[in-house]
Amino acid sequence: MAEEDVARELREDARALVESGEWAKAVALLSSLHPADLADLVLALNEDERSALLIHLPNDIVGQLFEFTEESDLKALIESVGIAGLPAVLEETPDNVTVDVIQQLTPAERIETLAALDREELGELLEYADESAGGIMSRGFVTLPERETVQQAIDYLRLLQPGADHAYYLYVVDDDERLQGVVSLRDLIVSRPSTVLAEVTSRDVHAVTAGTDQEEVARALQRYNLLAIPVVDEEGRLIGVTTADDLIDVLEEEATEDMYRMVGLDEDERVFSPVWQSVRRRLPWMMVNLATAFLAAAVVGRFNTTLGKATVLAAFMPIVAGQGGNAGTQTATIAVRSLALGDLEVRDVFRACRKEILVAIANGLAVGMVAGLAAFAWQQNWALSTVLASALFLNICAATMGGVLIPLGLKSINVDPALAANIFVTTITDVLGFLFFLGLATVAIKQIA
Amino acid sequence: MAEEDVARELREDARALVESGEWAKAVALLSSLHPADLADLVLALNEDERSALLIHLPNDIVGQLFEFTEESDLKALIESVGIAGLPAVLEETPDNVTVDVIQQLTPAERIETLAALDREELGELLEYADESAGGIMSRGFVTLPERETVQQAIDYLRLLQPGADHAYYLYVVDDDERLQGVVSLRDLIVSRPSTVLAEVTSRDVHAVTAGTDQEEVARALQRYNLLAIPVVDEEGRLIGVTTADDLIDVLEEEATEDMYRMVGLDEDERVFSPVWQSVRRRLPWMMVNLATAFLAAAVVGRFNTTLGKATVLAAFMPIVAGQGGNAGTQTATIAVRSLALGDLEVRDVFRACRKEILVAIANGLAVGMVAGLAAFAWQQNWALSTVLASALFLNICAATMGGVLIPLGLKSINVDPALAANIFVTTITDVLGFLFFLGLATVAIKQIA
Repeated sequence: MAEEDVARELREDARALVESGEWAKAVALLSSLHPADLADLVLALNEDERSALLIHLPNDIVGQLFEFTEESDLKALIESVGIAGLPAVLEETPDNVTVDVIQQLTPAERIETLAALDREELGELLEYADESAGGIMSRGFVTLPERETVQQAIDYLRLLQPGADHAYYLYVVDDDERLQGVVSLRDLIVSRPSTVLAEVTSRDVHAVTAGTDQEEVARALQRYNLLAIPVVDEEGRLIGVTTADDLIDVLEEEATEDMYRMVGLDEDERVFSPVWQSVRRRLPWMMVNLATAFLAAAVVGRFNTTLGKATVLAAFMPIVAGQGGNAGTQTATIAVRSLALGDLEVRDVFRACRKEILVAIANGLAVGMVAGLAAFAWQQNWALSTVLASALFLNICAATMGGVLIPLGLKSINVDPALAANIFVTTITDVLGFLFFLGLATVAIKQIA
Repeated sequence: MAEEDVARELREDARALVESGEWAKAVALLSSLHPADLADLVLALNEDERSALLIHLPNDIVGQLFEFTEESDLKALIESVGIAGLPAVLEETPDNVTVDVIQQLTPAERIETLAALDREELGELLEYADESAGGIMSRGFVTLPERETVQQAIDYLRLLQPGADHAYYLYVVDDDERLQGVVSLRDLIVSRPSTVLAEVTSRDVHAVTAGTDQEEVARALQRYNLLAIPVVDEEGRLIGVTTADDLIDVLEEEATEDMYRMVGLDEDERVFSPVWQSVRRRLPWMMVNLATAFLAAAVVGRFNTTLGKATVLAAFMPIVAGQGGNAGTQTATIAVRSLALGDLEVRDVFRACRKEILVAIANGLAVGMVAGLAAFAWQQNWALSTVLASALFLNICAATMGGVLIPLGLKSINVDPALAANIFVTTITDVLGFLFFLGLATVAIKQIA
C-alpha cells in the first residue's frame, strides 16, 4: 500500500537523522509521526540511540509514546528515559498509563517517582490488581447530576474542556455520587436544551467493580457493543472508566496468552525477545515434555518381547500416537477457545462430552478403516491391520475425551484451561496409544509375527 | 457474580414461558432483555420453539437480535423467521447487518428480499468482498461541510437526529464530498458556537479503501486507539464507516481462525456444531495427517534390520519425534501470532531465523544432554545415549527452522501462515527425527546391540 510505503520512508529518514545526531531535525520529523509509529521506531533503535533521542524529545511527545507502547515494551522506554526524568514525562500520561509505568519500577524507584508526581489518586489505582478492571481503568470521566438540564451540562463541558480521550459517555449520578445511568454526547446535542438529564439518561448501564477480571470486562464490551464500561465501588459510586482502546488490547493479549500457553510458551515471549530469555522461558516446558516422553518410552519398553518378534510394529507406533494427538489437540483447541469466548461453560461438560465422543467414534472408525486398509496394502497382514485399526479407534476416542475434559477440568479448579492443555493431551495419547497398539499386538502376536 | 445469576434466572423464566406457549408474557419479558442476551436464549431453543417465538416478537426486537448475533449463527435465525418475514425485519437492521443477512441467502431468495426492501445502497454494499472494509462498513455516517460553523453543525444534528450507533465522529468534507478530516462531538460541544468547522477539524485521519482487508482495518483501529475508521473511494470521497464494535469482532474472529487453522480445524467450527458437521470438517485433516504419518512409518520401515538388532530403539523413537514436535510447534505459534499482530514481517526472515536457531542450539544441547543421561541411567549404554542426544539436538534444530520458515514461506506466497503450519512441522519432525535417530543408530549398531 502506498500509505505504508510513505510511513516506512519517513521512518528510515528519521532513523538516519537520529544516527547522525541531527537532533533538531529528528525531533521535528518525529513529532509529526503518530505516537504508535513513533513507538515502533524508538523501540527499533539500540539503547544508546534511544536514550539520546528521548532526552531531546519534548515530554508531551514522550508521554504519548508511553501511551502507545505495549506493556511488555515499557521497561525499555523507562530505562532510556531514566528515573530522574520519569516524573516530568508521567505528568503528561493518562492515569492508567502512569500506573502501568510505575508498576514496572522497583519499590525504591516507585517511592521516588510517586513523591515527585504528587497525584494522590495514583496511590489508590496502584492498589488494584494488574489484570483487574481497577488496574486498567482511568479516572478521567465526567459526571453530571441527574437534575441538571442539557444546556447546563453543555455549559459545564465547555468550562471543563475534558480531554479528547474521556468524554464520549457522560455519567449521570445522584446526590450521593452513585451511578444512575449514562448520557452520550449525541443525546446532549440532539435533545432540547431545556430537557432535564434524568429524561435522556439511559439506565440500562453495564457497570463492573474494580476487582472484576479485565478479560470479563472486555468480553462485556464486545458482547454489548459498548465503547466504555464504568467501574463502581461497593456503594455503586463511580470510581473509574475502562475504555474500548484498552479493552481491545486486553482481548488481543488474552488470545495470544491462550495460543502461547497451549504450546507451553510464556505469554511475554516475543518473536524478537533476546535469545537467552527465550531459552529460559521455553526450556522448562521442554523438560516437562521430556519427562512425559520417557513415560511413553517406558510403556514401549515393557513390550520389548513383542517388538522383538515383530519389529514392523515399530513403524506403526507413531501413526497411532500421532493421530490421537491430532484428534486431542483439535478438541482441546476448540474447548480452550470456546471457554475464552464464553461459548462453553463448565456446567456444559456432559453436553460437550456427548458431542465430542460421537465425533470421535465417527472419525475413529473412518481413520481406523483407511489406516487398516493402507497397512494391509503395505504388509499383507490382516491381524496387523486389525490391531492398528482398533488401536487408532480407541486412541482417537481417548484423546478426544482428554481434549474436552482437561480444559474443562482445569477451568473448574480455576486454573487457566489453556495452561499445558497440550502436554496433558499428548501424554495421554502417547501412553495410551502405545498401550492400546502394543497390548493388542501382544495378544495377536502369533498372527502378526 | 450476582448480576450473572439474575440474568440466568431471567433466561430460565423466559424459556419456561416460551415452552408453555404464554406468548404475551414471554414477549414482554424478552423485550426487556439486552439483545445480546436475547440472542443467546433464542439460539438455545429448538427450531420449532424458535420459529414460534420469532413470529410473536416485534420486528424491531428481531432486528436487534440479528444485530447482536454472530455471523455463524445468522442462518438459524433466518430459517426461523422465514423468507417471507425477512424484509420487515431487515427494515430495522443497520446496513452492514442487512448485508450480512442477505449474503446467507440463495440467489433466488436474495432477489426476492432485495426487491421487497427497495434500499438501493444495499446493492452496492453487496458487491464488496465479505472480508473487506466494504463488507463490514455502514452507510450511517454524518458529513458536514468544512465552512459551516459549530452552531450550524449542532443545529443540523438536532434536525437530523442521527442514530445512537453512528454519531461519535462527524466527517468534514469539501465541496466535492472528499474527506478532509474528522470532528468529534466533544469538539462541537467544547468549541465556541461561532467557530468554523475547518478550525476544529483534525486532519490526521486514518482512512481505508473499500477493498482493504478487514483484519488490516481492525489492526489500524487497535494500533491508533480509534473508535471508527472511515472508508473512502479512489477519489477520496467518504463511502462508509467501520466501527469499533464490528472491528473488535473481526480481531476475535481472526484470532480464533489462526488458532483453529494451526491444528487443522475449520474456522466455522463451534463447540456445539452438529456432530456430522464437525466430522465432515475434521476428517479431511485427519486423513492428510494419516498420509504423512504413513510417510514417517515408511522411514521407520527402512530401518527394520537395525530395529531387529536392538528393539530398545523403538522405545526412544517417540522421544525424538515428540521433542522436535514441541520445539517446532512453539516456534510456529510465535511466528503465526507475530505475523498476525504485525510484529513480524516476511522481510525479517533472516533476523528471525538467526534468533530461533540460537534458541534451538541452546535448547537442543540442554534437552539432548538430559535425555542422554536419563537414557544411560535406564539402559546403561553410552552409544545409545550418544545417538539419542545427537538425534534430539539435530531434530530440535530442524524443527525450529521449520517452525519459522513454514509460516513465513506461506505468508510470502499469500497463503494464511496459520494454515496447516502444524501439519508441515509435525511431518518434518517425524520424518527427520526417525531418519536422524535410526540412521545414527544404524551407524553405531555394533555398540548399541
